[in-house]
Amino acid sequence: MSAELQTRSERKHDDIMRAATQAFIDKGYEGASMDDIAGRAGVSKQTLYKHFSDKDRLFEEIVLATAGGVDRLVALVGAPLAESKDVAKDLTALARGMLAALLDEELLKLRRLVIANAGRAPKLGRAWYEQGFERVLTTLANAFEGLSNRGLLGPHDPLVAANHFVGMLLWIPLNEAMFTGELQKRTARNRDAVADAATEAFLRAYGSPPDA
Amino acid sequence: MSAELQTRSERKHDDIMRAATQAFIDKGYEGASMDDIAGRAGVSKQTLYKHFSDKDRLFEEIVLATAGGVDRLVALVGAPLAESKDVAKDLTALARGMLAALLDEELLKLRRLVIANAGRAPKLGRAWYEQGFERVLTTLANAFEGLSNRGLLGPHDPLVAANHFVGMLLWIPLNEAMFTGELQKRTARNRDAVADAATEAFLRAYGSPPDA
Repeated sequence: MSAELQTRSERKHDDIMRAATQAFIDKGYEGASMDDIAGRAGVSKQTLYKHFSDKDRLFEEIVLATAGGVDRLVALVGAPLAESKDVAKDLTALARGMLAALLDEELLKLRRLVIANAGRAPKLGRAWYEQGFERVLTTLANAFEGLSNRGLLGPHDPLVAANHFVGMLLWIPLNEAMFTGELQKRTARNRDAVADAATEAFLRAYGSPPDA
Repeated sequence: MSAELQTRSERKHDDIMRAATQAFIDKGYEGASMDDIAGRAGVSKQTLYKHFSDKDRLFEEIVLATAGGVDRLVALVGAPLAESKDVAKDLTALARGMLAALLDEELLKLRRLVIANAGRAPKLGRAWYEQGFERVLTTLANAFEGLSNRGLLGPHDPLVAANHFVGMLLWIPLNEAMFTGELQKRTARNRDAVADAATEAFLRAYGSPPDA
């Protein structure tokens, strides 16, 4: 009984999160009202406030859940990378997977929303940056350090290497999405070409020396 | 007399642009009213509308002027680069100069504003992207092509090289500024270290082969 109640409560929690995400994306942070969110989620305002004391808290949880999801994804691909026997192959797969995941339309719209509100709500922007952005870089840096210790990458600072890998991979496609609003413009083939070019340049800069 | 009139008109034009930039930054695009902008610029609403038919047009001109300014700056540094005799030295200077210029507080706030409104006003976002972002990359790619022809960079696609150079240089500091709102966090020394690391990695990936 208690377990079932908790499950129902968790389900409502998830319904609210999904409804609020859509409301924020459609109307912006200021434009989305708690009334609107309750209506979309199909719950009473009383229920909504039982789960989230205010709009800020709700936005914060969405941002943290999204940022955490990105990091889990990278960890999933990054952990095997540290054990890799074919760095070029596995790094290419990581680059392609990361780019495809980050060019998700909802994720990009949330990203833009966080940037738009970073002046008003710096705490949220910082949460996204630290919980998502920086954690991904740390995860990658750990994988690169493992490869470097095994002589499969050169002896460079692994965090700088991670910054540069991600910068080469994401700078163009993410800015294109942020500025032009054409979130689904690139084909899978084009995305893969961007990922492959970034990986090749990265390996020239950070790969193990040819005589190693 | 006619020249003097034109000068006065141009001065008012500039006053309005400056006042509108501040109004947009302070209140966001939606929040800034034409009344507010006229008040800040010290002109009548009639004068304001003589210069700009509506708020969209005004925002557009600010975005284009800013994007154009960035491109001129890069061209100023990029043109001598194509003639460079010491690529490492001149590329380091370019990287440091670009990073310092792009971490300007007003520019970052405008950049965030353009991203925030890219869903509502994709034309503006696209203008910033094409007139500023892409033109800078083309300017850089031209310089890299010149260096490559002279054997001072390797035989790689110069536009991909430009994308990667800028990505390694700007990905971390610009995202940090976009998300955390800490626009003036980095010291000049730290900025230079970021620029130097990006240049070194770039030259490992794109420099001329050691036996050339």
